Amino acid sequence: MSAVRFDLDAPRAGPSPPVAPMRWWGWGSDAQAAQLSPTALALLRERLGLDGARVDAPVRITDVALSEPNLPPATLAALRTCVGEAHVHTDRLARISHAAGRSYPDLVRLRSGAVEHPPDAVVMPGSADEVAQLLSLASAEGIAVVPFGGGTSVVGGVEPLRGRFDVVISLDLRRLSSLREVDERSRLAHVEAGILGPALERALAERGFALGHYPQSFEYSTVGGWVAARSAGQASSGVGRIDDLLAGVDLATPTGTISLPALPPNAAGPDLRRLVLGSEGVLGAITSCTLRIRPRPQARHAEAWSLPSFEAGCAALRQLAQRRCLPDVARLSDEQETDVSLTLASNTTAVAWLRRYLRLRGQRRPCLVVTIYEGEGDEVAWRRARCRRALRAHGGVPLGAAPARSWERERFRGPYLRDELLDRGVLVETLETATTWSRLGELYGAVREALRTALATPSSEPVVMCHVSHLYETGASLYFTFLAPVAPDERLQRWAQAKRAACDAIVAHGGTISHHHGVGRDHRDWLVHEDGERSLDALRALKRELDPQGVMNPGKLLPDE
Amino acid sequence: MSAVRFDLDAPRAGPSPPVAPMRWWGWGSDAQAAQLSPTALALLRERLGLDGARVDAPVRITDVALSEPNLPPATLAALRTCVGEAHVHTDRLARISHAAGRSYPDLVRLRSGAVEHPPDAVVMPGSADEVAQLLSLASAEGIAVVPFGGGTSVVGGVEPLRGRFDVVISLDLRRLSSLREVDERSRLAHVEAGILGPALERALAERGFALGHYPQSFEYSTVGGWVAARSAGQASSGVGRIDDLLAGVDLATPTGTISLPALPPNAAGPDLRRLVLGSEGVLGAITSCTLRIRPRPQARHAEAWSLPSFEAGCAALRQLAQRRCLPDVARLSDEQETDVSLTLASNTTAVAWLRRYLRLRGQRRPCLVVTIYEGEGDEVAWRRARCRRALRAHGGVPLGAAPARSWERERFRGPYLRDELLDRGVLVETLETATTWSRLGELYGAVREALRTALATPSSEPVVMCHVSHLYETGASLYFTFLAPVAPDERLQRWAQAKRAACDAIVAHGGTISHHHGVGRDHRDWLVHEDGERSLDALRALKRELDPQGVMNPGKLLPDE
Repeated sequence: MSAVRFDLDAPRAGPSPPVAPMRWWGWGSDAQAAQLSPTALALLRERLGLDGARVDAPVRITDVALSEPNLPPATLAALRTCVGEAHVHTDRLARISHAAGRSYPDLVRLRSGAVEHPPDAVVMPGSADEVAQLLSLASAEGIAVVPFGGGTSVVGGVEPLRGRFDVVISLDLRRLSSLREVDERSRLAHVEAGILGPALERALAERGFALGHYPQSFEYSTVGGWVAARSAGQASSGVGRIDDLLAGVDLATPTGTISLPALPPNAAGPDLRRLVLGSEGVLGAITSCTLRIRPRPQARHAEAWSLPSFEAGCAALRQLAQRRCLPDVARLSDEQETDVSLTLASNTTAVAWLRRYLRLRGQRRPCLVVTIYEGEGDEVAWRRARCRRALRAHGGVPLGAAPARSWERERFRGPYLRDELLDRGVLVETLETATTWSRLGELYGAVREALRTALATPSSEPVVMCHVSHLYETGASLYFTFLAPVAPDERLQRWAQAKRAACDAIVAHGGTISHHHGVGRDHRDWLVHEDGERSLDALRALKRELDPQGVMNPGKLLPDE
Repeated sequence: MSAVRFDLDAPRAGPSPPVAPMRWWGWGSDAQAAQLSPTALALLRERLGLDGARVDAPVRITDVALSEPNLPPATLAALRTCVGEAHVHTDRLARISHAAGRSYPDLVRLRSGAVEHPPDAVVMPGSADEVAQLLSLASAEGIAVVPFGGGTSVVGGVEPLRGRFDVVISLDLRRLSSLREVDERSRLAHVEAGILGPALERALAERGFALGHYPQSFEYSTVGGWVAARSAGQASSGVGRIDDLLAGVDLATPTGTISLPALPPNAAGPDLRRLVLGSEGVLGAITSCTLRIRPRPQARHAEAWSLPSFEAGCAALRQLAQRRCLPDVARLSDEQETDVSLTLASNTTAVAWLRRYLRLRGQRRPCLVVTIYEGEGDEVAWRRARCRRALRAHGGVPLGAAPARSWERERFRGPYLRDELLDRGVLVETLETATTWSRLGELYGAVREALRTALATPSSEPVVMCHVSHLYETGASLYFTFLAPVAPDERLQRWAQAKRAACDAIVAHGGTISHHHGVGRDHRDWLVHEDGERSLDALRALKRELDPQGVMNPGKLLPDE
């Protein structure tokens, strides 16, 4: 759930502290577990008719039904020879922890102990050479390989499907976690692909630099995962998407390594870095990346606004995007998401006055905009002044810093809350798309209606909310969060219905099947509607060349032929 | 020759008027032919020891040695069936006009009547469907197809090499020249790929919009050519490269059409638009593009500066690029290019005073910087103020608007002047590369020295000059122009020596083999040093999939296997 929490007195949060390993059945560590606030419980009661009682809990790990690993002794020995005995894991926790990503159906299955596709082994190489050897071995021996960074995919990208192979391994890249080199003059950092977001930002901060790439999974996802799935990061309008940040990359494939040096944009044939971006492990495993970095920002300003409607908010953001004068973070919640955010706020008295104030200003159904500016002091001041004028011109009312800081403090918290919601019988999921400004309103309406129709029952309406958070001159993203009460035995089926309805609506109304979550297993049947058969044939040809046996991440990205 | 002409009283030039067909042996039409000024003739005398007499002239077209077209009657009939009899050309002028691009060796061969690789026919389809039919026919019948936009390639990209095929056609796409649709809200224009630069800008201007993409070939090159060769455009730091401007594209291939819709950046697998960008006709022919456009700029400001050294100029531009605060055009000439520009100026008295003034300011070997700003008035004023401060901080001395306007007026004139220089026995060529800021100085020195060594003779030194004109946070381009006296019978050999020496130096010192000219025939042997064998194998696999017979532009981009 990605709603904005509305705490008027929240202090500003910096980058996250080091994180503990993720619990096998949910998000984050037990120590970081979220609590639903009284206002959240009230919201469940009033909107979804749920009394807030815990109706579901994860099974004990010993109760997870887990098949024996299919790992012939010779295969196990060969894997151990590659990476060392200590780095081939076949224990229950390792296999379960690598059996699924973190989508709603992933969590439902994990919690109920139904691990459908555990890897036979989890293999953790310690160098790019070891990765190359492993892929070569896998190709020769017919072992399916599923690259695994942080395991945070919400589209089934890391599920160990074995395709036509008897053995499947999860290739955990997190031992490749060092910052190798910083070229301060060229603003480039060469990093191993398995480094986690917080570790990378800490290492860069010691040198006075920052990457600034903050997907919601930031605490638990890796550079390689960001590149493989083309993540956007919450500050995409400031620092750019990971696509923009990637200057060089090494991709190990079963037939050799593709090494693309860190160069400025050029005309030396097609830019093959863009083939690695979004390749989702089906061509190979990313072992290192050279990323554009920047000095740590000197100045920073966060502030929230209320706009009179989602349409007015979109118009304001469109104007700013097309003037190329945007906050680094710009996030517009629709009427529903704003209402939920206000309802969830802990300071209910303040919010009641705020609602009255906004009504007086003509905003009966306000839409919250979070803006964050970073950079050099005078530049931030100048850009902010321009943005403020545009927001005012579209009916915006400034709300000060607190709501924006609250959002910032909570911006990685959504997945933690989700575990709590699952405990209480809530179907909760997110999905995202993007389209041109011309079609944005149509797409927004179509996906909303598809989700509503798919999730409504005679006795309940779902909560469907949306925000725009990635802005381009040509269009913008739409990020939907939806909640509905669901009976335990209907969870997967209802999710599949809603997902299918939304994906159908997306392709029917000119949206992309994914703005930043990727394709994985869940979107692959819709990709052809976006790019056409010949495009997929081209990708298949690439895969045949680099991975002739088809061992790399079977069943992902590309629909079966 | 890309030197800045230094006319202190030059009026500002707008977009070019419609252009006449290009003369078959050189650049532009006879009506637009350039004249070498007295200062230019003096420069040839003093620097290159040439007396300025015309020692070479193009042969008459009737004297061009041209083999008979190898076009079996059935093939000719099939081509005519595809596009209509009027659009299959086998006449002398058509075949010669499509026999080469516009590099120095291309011009040397054309002028001397040695047309090595004329197409057997020039075919001009009138629709994307006709292109698709032609490619299908070519693949079935074994006809090599060389896509041809404006024919301005300087890397051999449009030369009709026939590979293993008996018949080769030049596929001239200029009948596909309409602006199909403008989506003003999303700032997108859907255009056919054969439209020329000036026609596109005129059609957009009628709607109040502009593309703003100005390669030096602008008057004679097409949108499809820009995309196929990844051109940068002189205002790349303002509007972005063609890579950034392309939102959607249709690529006809021998096995079907790849249609990639105009969408904002997304995560729906690898971005295959980036495979079309830079594909140089070896995968198929681009039939239409959807491009990002912008309103015609309200404000505009051009001004020149003098920096105390090339190194200081690079430092200033690096600071601006890394602050993301650049002029739309920013172009820094090195000491040699600046000196030549000043020497060529028509107002010699003014220049003499300018040189004295700069010496007094401590600049004995000044480096000229041209800056042009475009956009909204307040934004231009603010950005310009920041840029001025940075230039001053690096020792810059402002020179006012005239030199910048002079450059702007002359910015498409280089290729016209080249014809005049060839008449006088000058070897004149340009080449470009790019690298990271860390390696820029090293690469600059290495390529300069390679060119100097390759072109020097016991009796003469070449003129080797350079400018930086495309700026990125990670690095910048280097654009070399070189001139040397050459005997008629040594022209191709001396050119090949210089080219090889420069390319070897580029790959040895971490440069890209092309920043914006492309790979074509001339750079293909060096591409492997940049991207490695596996990358080329991946491209070859793509080609096999889309063009299984290998009919598309044989001998370009990819080294032979």
